[in-house]
Amino acid sequence: MDIYESSLKMHADLRGKLAVKPLVEVKDKEALSNAYTPGVAAPCKEIAKDPSKAYTYTRKWNTVAVVSDGSAVLGLGNIGGLAGLPVMEGKSLLFKEFAGIDSVPIVLSGQDEDDIVKAVEMIAPTFGGINLEDICAPKCFAVEKKLKEKLDIPVFHDDQHGTAIVVTAALLNALKVCGKNMESANIVICGAGSAGIAICKLLLESGANNIIMADRKGLVCEGEEWLTSAQAEIAKVTNRGKVRGSLADAVKGADVFIGVSAPKQLTKEMVGSMAEKPVVFAMANPEPEIYPGEAKAGGAYVVGTGRSDFPNQINNLLAFPGVFRGALDVRAKDISEGMKVAAAKALAALAEEKLSPEYIIPSPFDGRVAPAVAKAVAEQAKKEGLARV
Amino acid sequence: MDIYESSLKMHADLRGKLAVKPLVEVKDKEALSNAYTPGVAAPCKEIAKDPSKAYTYTRKWNTVAVVSDGSAVLGLGNIGGLAGLPVMEGKSLLFKEFAGIDSVPIVLSGQDEDDIVKAVEMIAPTFGGINLEDICAPKCFAVEKKLKEKLDIPVFHDDQHGTAIVVTAALLNALKVCGKNMESANIVICGAGSAGIAICKLLLESGANNIIMADRKGLVCEGEEWLTSAQAEIAKVTNRGKVRGSLADAVKGADVFIGVSAPKQLTKEMVGSMAEKPVVFAMANPEPEIYPGEAKAGGAYVVGTGRSDFPNQINNLLAFPGVFRGALDVRAKDISEGMKVAAAKALAALAEEKLSPEYIIPSPFDGRVAPAVAKAVAEQAKKEGLARV
Repeated sequence: MDIYESSLKMHADLRGKLAVKPLVEVKDKEALSNAYTPGVAAPCKEIAKDPSKAYTYTRKWNTVAVVSDGSAVLGLGNIGGLAGLPVMEGKSLLFKEFAGIDSVPIVLSGQDEDDIVKAVEMIAPTFGGINLEDICAPKCFAVEKKLKEKLDIPVFHDDQHGTAIVVTAALLNALKVCGKNMESANIVICGAGSAGIAICKLLLESGANNIIMADRKGLVCEGEEWLTSAQAEIAKVTNRGKVRGSLADAVKGADVFIGVSAPKQLTKEMVGSMAEKPVVFAMANPEPEIYPGEAKAGGAYVVGTGRSDFPNQINNLLAFPGVFRGALDVRAKDISEGMKVAAAKALAALAEEKLSPEYIIPSPFDGRVAPAVAKAVAEQAKKEGLARV
Repeated sequence: MDIYESSLKMHADLRGKLAVKPLVEVKDKEALSNAYTPGVAAPCKEIAKDPSKAYTYTRKWNTVAVVSDGSAVLGLGNIGGLAGLPVMEGKSLLFKEFAGIDSVPIVLSGQDEDDIVKAVEMIAPTFGGINLEDICAPKCFAVEKKLKEKLDIPVFHDDQHGTAIVVTAALLNALKVCGKNMESANIVICGAGSAGIAICKLLLESGANNIIMADRKGLVCEGEEWLTSAQAEIAKVTNRGKVRGSLADAVKGADVFIGVSAPKQLTKEMVGSMAEKPVVFAMANPEPEIYPGEAKAGGAYVVGTGRSDFPNQINNLLAFPGVFRGALDVRAKDISEGMKVAAAKALAALAEEKLSPEYIIPSPFDGRVAPAVAKAVAEQAKKEGLARV
């Protein structure tokens, strides 16, 4: 049985990867009077007087919605909200398993930007945070931006920011292994969609100065007519040398290749044209931009992928549980760029002791990960005045 | 410590009455690959091909949203969605405890009719059913009507229909105890809001022919200028004798008084003016339209209230868990009037063996209740072609 067959069987056996766990038994009148009418009027009145009391008397403090319209699910594309439900249930499962967070999968019937914003805004009081998932670009930018403005709880599009945090952590350590640093490294990001742009922004925030982004149509460069508005914005602070041409032109002499694009974008020869001790993160899933063996054969010094069957798995699971745990713990109003950088640094620090080309990032099953990320995120939120407790 | 103090303490101790229970452990790569990427692509693809497979591979089959805008919470009035969250969590808890249903409380930030409809429509694919709760009249009628038209899953406003089912069950048995029947009984319903009108409709559906509704402004009668549109509609099929005047005028000679209004609406003298062996259901909460002792002193033969400290507690908890259990079990598209009547009859039948003026309806803690109601509802759905399995 391959993994798809065994997963299908598991899903059919379970019929849902999450259930509700009651925290109070209701076996008699007294229990009913406490948990429901008439007693429940007491916490309601307290919250009506002071809305922050919702964190004291309800599960809001520990509850995150995983919301998707299913417009960009994994490698499956636009399969719609309902068909994306197994992914969202999986994500909610991981929130619980890795950070003790009670998460509710919510899949949407519509894919219109304003409808998504309206729906999330309407249901938001229920939750301590909103994790947006598998929403296609450029819609995901606008949805997140609008919700961040409207809501006083964290809104986090994991496909963008989770990926960015883990890549940043991995790159901090990879550069250390190579004796290089973020400030002077020449970095090429292949794939200028939502993940690529989020990675770019967080690397800039973390000190990077020289980044070139590449898309299917060419290198992202100020003035190119084909740029999307998000790409045009990022073009103002990347590719300052105005390099044009192909991906092969961009990677010549580069220290770092980061792929969030498609299989087979990078060849052994292209790796050979990079600077000394090059870093290659080939994260297209399931088939990477270049397989690790070929990258190594081309001279790559550190290689990472999104896959669990090679060393250095760059996996969102290293970020989102801890990020939300930290944000919830201090009732953060938002998740800022600074909180993401703090998460990346904390994650990188966990691998520092045993750093090697084959170990730049901890395993997702390393129990230290979520608590360390949570602590860093919570502390940074306090520093920035974004914490409410 | 009174019930409000002990409830507040319980809520502060628990910080949420429900948690998420993971149904699969994610301790290693293999588990992760099955529950999440890459294996999860398999159930997603199956659902994309055939949406009904969501009932096979996700928790949709057993999941009900409890949705409220908090515009009419218990006796508290319009306290808003967030302040109503303890009630919705309580309701979700009861769904789990009494019918094994995984329920998700969802409280809304807005109270606009169209916004509520849009939000519920957007999140609906996630759920096997929608329980609307504590939404004020007349908005609740329009919200429910629109959602029933738009959605292919059951939508049920419990404040209306749950109450109507339990009252109908209780009245079927109360009339039996009195040697009367639904068809010929003269019935007065005091309170022509959402619950009162729903009760009226279900009693008509169950064979009642003579009902007069009373509201604060007077008796509901065709042609009165003060009627709301819902009242005007019900006026076409009630009060055919065009009785006008006060509640006291209406109850004279009546067999049944049903109160869903306010404290102290009915006096001992008014009960004395009713027909022989009168039935009095005084369900205003927490203080009834008349206390049982006084009603009995006035000559009432059967008395019911909404309270647990008197006999014959007419409590929604007797209906909604079983109604949704039955609807979910057959993947019903809707909950019809026929399914509600079936629920009422099944509920009444459970008390039939030991029928007396002090026992016309089973206790909410009688373990037979939800299964019996579920069975009747599921069977009726099949009969009406509303079942999908």
